[in-house]
Amino acid sequence: MLQVKGRARVMDESAQEAARAPLYLEDFAPGFRFTGGTRQVSAEAITAFALEFDPQPFHTDAEAAKSTFFGGLAASGWHTAALTMRLLIESGLPIAGGFIGGSGEIAWPQPTRPGDILTVECEVLAVTPSRSRPERGTITLKMETLNQRREVVQVFTAKVLVPRRGTAAA
Amino acid sequence: MLQVKGRARVMDESAQEAARAPLYLEDFAPGFRFTGGTRQVSAEAITAFALEFDPQPFHTDAEAAKSTFFGGLAASGWHTAALTMRLLIESGLPIAGGFIGGSGEIAWPQPTRPGDILTVECEVLAVTPSRSRPERGTITLKMETLNQRREVVQVFTAKVLVPRRGTAAA
Repeated sequence: MLQVKGRARVMDESAQEAARAPLYLEDFAPGFRFTGGTRQVSAEAITAFALEFDPQPFHTDAEAAKSTFFGGLAASGWHTAALTMRLLIESGLPIAGGFIGGSGEIAWPQPTRPGDILTVECEVLAVTPSRSRPERGTITLKMETLNQRREVVQVFTAKVLVPRRGTAAA
Repeated sequence: MLQVKGRARVMDESAQEAARAPLYLEDFAPGFRFTGGTRQVSAEAITAFALEFDPQPFHTDAEAAKSTFFGGLAASGWHTAALTMRLLIESGLPIAGGFIGGSGEIAWPQPTRPGDILTVECEVLAVTPSRSRPERGTITLKMETLNQRREVVQVFTAKVLVPRRGTAAA
């Protein structure tokens, strides 16, 4: 249903380290950047996701979509979000214990369209040890999902849970 | 994969009106509340979604999940978000032109678990006509997704696009 077009593109040495060993809170710093893989989205994938989760004409019917706000078939924002998560998991950034977000701000400046090739570019904005839980903290991560014209289809800025070194569960 | 347990529960007269006719910006006011349908989430659905979009052990493997942060199988937050969207569409609240969110804040205070029965309760926080586009505006909508114990598994507070009466596209 979806084509995988590539895997992690590594942007600096710390990210290359990241590709080999689990990352702990101490391994992150503001300004740390990484890029996920790329993935093409078909009209069929857009429609299949929407039929299950967001059955509205602009997501499920290319013809009916023409007379809507979107002016043509557009992916559900939740489809863009789910695909972005897949790209993050594929990016090879192995946060110790997994990629776990608790909250964030999300925006869809424009929709994902059939045939779009998405990628995700991430930047660490802040690193915050927990005051009450010495074994962990959060990173504030800005994740921009871009199409092949480098137009932003989603921005998700989230607090991601990261264990501190020597304290994480296996 | 998912069981539909019910459809719209209507909470007040204006919501009952809403079940019959398209809703425009003028039809909303702060404090307006409505509730979506309910839906049970199976372990199989959690795993299927995660294998496609969020393939991490705590979402895909009940046994491996035991030794993770979640202590057992947990739905991807994006699965909870997508299911919530489905409940909103099923709720029968017919916003003119469709249910279109542009941005919002999302949080997952705790995960959706296998067997959970989700519902969504919504409240209009604000109604804001567009300054630049006289034909539309936004409502700020707080959408709480609850499980069968009335524990909050997701809060999504979003700006939802709503046309003004007499100006919407068909």
